[in-house]
Amino acid sequence: MENYVLKASCRDKPHIISQITASIAQNEGNITDLDQYSDKGTQHFFLRLTFSMDEKNLSSLLFSFKSIREFFDMEISLRIENQKKKMLILCSKQPHCLIHLLEKKRQGAISVDIPAIVSNHKDCEPIAAYHHIPFHHFPISKENKMEQEALIEELIEQNHVDLIVLARYMQILSPTFCKKYEGKIINIHHSFLPGFKGANPYKQAHDRGVKIIGATSHFVTSELDEGPIICQETIRVNHHHSIEEFIRFGADIEALVLARAVKHVLEDKVFIDGNKTVAFK
Amino acid sequence: MENYVLKASCRDKPHIISQITASIAQNEGNITDLDQYSDKGTQHFFLRLTFSMDEKNLSSLLFSFKSIREFFDMEISLRIENQKKKMLILCSKQPHCLIHLLEKKRQGAISVDIPAIVSNHKDCEPIAAYHHIPFHHFPISKENKMEQEALIEELIEQNHVDLIVLARYMQILSPTFCKKYEGKIINIHHSFLPGFKGANPYKQAHDRGVKIIGATSHFVTSELDEGPIICQETIRVNHHHSIEEFIRFGADIEALVLARAVKHVLEDKVFIDGNKTVAFK
Amino acid sequence: MENYVLKASCRDKPHIISQITASIAQNEGNITDLDQYSDKGTQHFFLRLTFSMDEKNLSSLLFSFKSIREFFDMEISLRIENQKKKMLILCSKQPHCLIHLLEKKRQGAISVDIPAIVSNHKDCEPIAAYHHIPFHHFPISKENKMEQEALIEELIEQNHVDLIVLARYMQILSPTFCKKYEGKIINIHHSFLPGFKGANPYKQAHDRGVKIIGATSHFVTSELDEGPIICQETIRVNHHHSIEEFIRFGADIEALVLARAVKHVLEDKVFIDGNKTVAFK
Amino acid sequence: MENYVLKASCRDKPHIISQITASIAQNEGNITDLDQYSDKGTQHFFLRLTFSMDEKNLSSLLFSFKSIREFFDMEISLRIENQKKKMLILCSKQPHCLIHLLEKKRQGAISVDIPAIVSNHKDCEPIAAYHHIPFHHFPISKENKMEQEALIEELIEQNHVDLIVLARYMQILSPTFCKKYEGKIINIHHSFLPGFKGANPYKQAHDRGVKIIGATSHFVTSELDEGPIICQETIRVNHHHSIEEFIRFGADIEALVLARAVKHVLEDKVFIDGNKTVAFK
Repeated sequence: MENYVLKASCRDKPHIISQITASIAQNEGNITDLDQYSDKGTQHFFLRLTFSMDEKNLSSLLFSFKSIREFFDMEISLRIENQKKKMLILCSKQPHCLIHLLEKKRQGAISVDIPAIVSNHKDCEPIAAYHHIPFHHFPISKENKMEQEALIEELIEQNHVDLIVLARYMQILSPTFCKKYEGKIINIHHSFLPGFKGANPYKQAHDRGVKIIGATSHFVTSELDEGPIICQETIRVNHHHSIEEFIRFGADIEALVLARAVKHVLEDKVFIDGNKTVAFK
Repeated sequence: MENYVLKASCRDKPHIISQITASIAQNEGNITDLDQYSDKGTQHFFLRLTFSMDEKNLSSLLFSFKSIREFFDMEISLRIENQKKKMLILCSKQPHCLIHLLEKKRQGAISVDIPAIVSNHKDCEPIAAYHHIPFHHFPISKENKMEQEALIEELIEQNHVDLIVLARYMQILSPTFCKKYEGKIINIHHSFLPGFKGANPYKQAHDRGVKIIGATSHFVTSELDEGPIICQETIRVNHHHSIEEFIRFGADIEALVLARAVKHVLEDKVFIDGNKTVAFK
Repeated sequence: MENYVLKASCRDKPHIISQITASIAQNEGNITDLDQYSDKGTQHFFLRLTFSMDEKNLSSLLFSFKSIREFFDMEISLRIENQKKKMLILCSKQPHCLIHLLEKKRQGAISVDIPAIVSNHKDCEPIAAYHHIPFHHFPISKENKMEQEALIEELIEQNHVDLIVLARYMQILSPTFCKKYEGKIINIHHSFLPGFKGANPYKQAHDRGVKIIGATSHFVTSELDEGPIICQETIRVNHHHSIEEFIRFGADIEALVLARAVKHVLEDKVFIDGNKTVAFK
Repeated sequence: MENYVLKASCRDKPHIISQITASIAQNEGNITDLDQYSDKGTQHFFLRLTFSMDEKNLSSLLFSFKSIREFFDMEISLRIENQKKKMLILCSKQPHCLIHLLEKKRQGAISVDIPAIVSNHKDCEPIAAYHHIPFHHFPISKENKMEQEALIEELIEQNHVDLIVLARYMQILSPTFCKKYEGKIINIHHSFLPGFKGANPYKQAHDRGVKIIGATSHFVTSELDEGPIICQETIRVNHHHSIEEFIRFGADIEALVLARAVKHVLEDKVFIDGNKTVAFK
C-alpha cells in the first residue's frame, strides 16, 4: 500500500467530487483526508485529497483520471506522499529565516530536500555547512545581475527544483525569471501587506505609529509585493519600541510565517486563485 | 433547488466518502462544500457536506442513505440549510454573553430561533424585551431547584429546542438533566480549561500570577467542567491588573467564545469524538 | 484624602520628574502610579502620574506646578480621579460599537458621563433608551450637513463635552470641526490602517486576499484616516470567508478596539506625539 | 556621561520616588526612563529607572542611596547599562530553545556574555561551537547526579554567573541548588501553566482536546512547575493535529517565550513579588 496526494483544480461544475472519489473507490483506494473549496467569485473549484492504494492499481487509476481531466479541463497532480520535493533557498546577509527553515527541516516539521543554498553574500555559509547543504556564493553587482540569475536558473534546472524560497533575499528578480517560475517562488515580505510596500517597511510602520506590525509570505509575480498572499502574522508594538526593535520583533514572525508558508506549499495545500490563494488547513 | 446540510459519523472504513458522494451525484445533487476527518486514535470518521438538489429527488436520496447508514452503522442527519434550529438560553445576572449572542443574531451572523430566555434573576429581562423574546423568571432556592429544572425541561420539550446555551447561568444542572440533553448543552467557562476549574477562576488565575487568561466553551456533561471543549480564546494580562479587571477583560472573550461555539454547533460543524470535539473550519 | 491624576508633556529636559515628584512630596502627597516616556525622535517628554493627597494642600501644590509649567513650558492637567468626564457619542445605523461602549460603561470598565447620543438615523434610539441616555436624531442631507454639525457643536458646548466618539458614524466631519476639537475626537476605522483607507475596507481586504483583517482607533484630524493611531487589533480570516463574514468578524474587533481606546483616553493615558500617540499601559 | 540602571523594591511607603529622583537630580543625573508599581495586595513597591550621569558623581549618589536604603529597608541594585551580565545555559538533546537564544544574542536583541553551555548530552555541541561558546558535557546517571550538579555550581561560581537558563534541560535540580540560586534560575515549561504540570504536557493537552496550547517561562523554586511566572504565550491547535504536531508548534513558542523572559530579566525588568512577578514593559 502506498499513500498518494492528489491536487486538482478546474472551473466549478457538478459531479467533480463524486467522479474522482468513485475512481479511487473502483481502484480500491481509501480516502484518508479531503479538502475542497468552490470560489463563488472566480467560479473555480479546488480539491486536495490523500488516499492509500495498492501500487498495482495506479495505472488503472491514472487512466480514469485522464478522462476526468479532459472532461473537466482540470489541472491535476498526483504524487507519492513520502517522495520529497526539492527546494532551493536564496538568502542574503540576514540568517534568521534560513536558520528557522533548516531547523524546521531538522525537527521533521518540513519534509524536503534542499540541494542548494544560494546567496550574494558569504554570511550564511557556516549555517549551510552545519546542515551539510551545498552553499553557492553568487555576488551581485549592477553588471552581473543577469549572469548570476542565469547561474541560479542552471541550479534550478540541474536539480529539478520544485520550489524557490526567498529567505530575505533582498534582490529583485527579473520579470522573465518571475514569469518562468510563476507559482514556484515564495517570498517573505517584512510588513503586513498591503500596509507598507517597498523598501524599509519597519521604518514606514514606525513613522506611522502603528500599534501592530506584521509579516507576509506570498508568491512572487513580476509586480513587486503584489503576488498572492499565502500566510500572514502580526505582533503588537508600542511607542517604547525603536525601529531597531521593530526589526528584531519582526525577525521572529518573518521566520515563522515563511516556514509556515513553505510547509503548506510543499504539502500541496495552497492553490493560486486569481490574485488570491486558497490555503487549506 | 434546495440546499442541504449532511452530517455523518461512524467507525472509519474504506469507501464511505465515495458511497455518499455517488448517492448525491446519482440524485443530481451538487456538492458545494465538504469537510471530512478520520481520527486515527478513536478510529472514528466524521463528515459534513452541503449540497444543492431538486427537492423531488429527496426521497430517492434518503432511500440510498438508509442502506449506507445500515451498512456503515452510521449516525447521519440531513437538514435543509435555511431551516432554523431552536435554541433556549439560560442566564443569570450577568448580561454580557446574552447581549452578544442576541447582537450576533441581529447581525445575521447566527441564524436561529430563540423561543425563550430563562433566568433565575430578573436583571436580563429588559434585554429580552428589547429583542422581543419571551423571558421566563424561574428563581432558584435549595428547595425548588428540581421543580425549576422541570419547568426548563417543559420549555425545551414544548418548543422542540435543539440547543441549550448556558450564557453564564451560574447554576449546576442535575446529572439527570445533563444526561438527557447530552451533546445539546453548551456552557461558557470563564477560564482557560483545564487551568482553573471550579469557582472563582479569575481569582485563582490572579493568585497564580498568570500572564494570559482565557475562556472555554464546552459541551456539558455530568462531570463539572470536564465536557468536550468546542472553542477557546485567550487574552494577555499583567501585574497591573486587579481581579476585577481580569473579570472585565474576561467578559469580552467569554462573549466571543460562546457566540463562536454556538454558531459552529448550529451550523452542524461540531462532532463529539470521545471526550474531544472535531470542529470543522 | 483625594486621588489625583496628573498629565504633563513638554520638550524633554533634565530634572522634570524630580521637580514634579518633589512638589508632590512637599505637599504630603503620595505617588501611587507613575508612567513616563521620552521620545528620542521628537525630543518630547510625557508623564502621567496618580497620587493621593489631602485636599487642603491642593492650592499650595498648584502654586508649585505654576512655576514648573512656566519653567519647562509644559502642558499640564490635573484632575480628581473620581470626577467623571463627559463624552458625546455619534453613531449611524450600525449599533455594535455603541452597544459595546454602553455595556462597558454598565460593567464599570469605562467610567464616564454620556449626556447625549447623536445619530443621523433612528436605528439606535431604543439602545439609548434602554440605557436612559438622551438620543438626538439629526438626519443629514447634502443641504443641511453644516447646520447639523452646528447642532452637534451646540450639544458639545452646552454639555461641556470632553470627548467625542465616532462609533461608526459614517459621516465625514468638516475640517473646521476637526480642527476645533483636535485631540478630542476618536474614530474607529474598520481596517488595519494604513492598509485599506477610504471606503469599503473589508471589500478591499477581500479583493486582496489578506489572511488577517483589523480595526484601528485613531484621533480624527482633517486628513481622512491619517490621524494618530491609538489602538489596533487583528483577526484571522481565510479563503472560505465572504465579504459579509469579514464585516461580521470585523464588527467584534471594531467594538473592542474602540472601547479600549476610549477607556485609555478617558483615563488620561494617551498623549499625541506628532502624528503618533504615546499610549501608556 | 554614563547610563545607569537602578532596580529597587521595598515595603510601600510615601515619598520613595521623590527621595530617589531628588538624589539623582542633586547629583546632576537625568532620568531617561522610569517604571514603578505598588502592589496593593502584598503592599510592596517596585521601581526600575534608567538615568545618565557623570561618573564623577557616582560616589556621592551611592552615599545618598545608602541612607535611602536604610530608611526604607530597601533592596536596591545599581549597574552600568552597557555592562554585560553573565549567563549559563543548561540544555539537553532538544536544541530549539538554545538556537533561538544564541540567535537573539547574535542579532543584538539579547545583550549578555555566555561563558558556558552545559548539557547531559552531546547533541548541542556543534551549535555551541558555531557560536564559539565553551560546551561542557556532564552526562547524568542516577549515581552521579549530585556530583554533576556540583560541577555546574563550580562553573557558576568560577564565572560569576548572574543567570542560569534551563533551555529544555529535562533534569530536576536538587532543592539545595534551587534554594541557593533562587531568583536566578529561569525555566521554560512546555505548557500553559498551571494547565498541564509534570511530564508530557503536550500529551495531556492532546488527550484533553484543548484548542490552544502554550508555553510558560518561570523562575525555578524547589516546588516543581510552581515558581513565579515571567512570561506566557499561546498558539491555536485543532483536532487535525497529532501530539507530534503539538510538540512542533510548541517548540516555536517555547523558544520565543524563553528568549523574551531571559531578555526581560537581564534588563532588570522583572521583580519577584511573592509567588508572582512584576514584569515591566
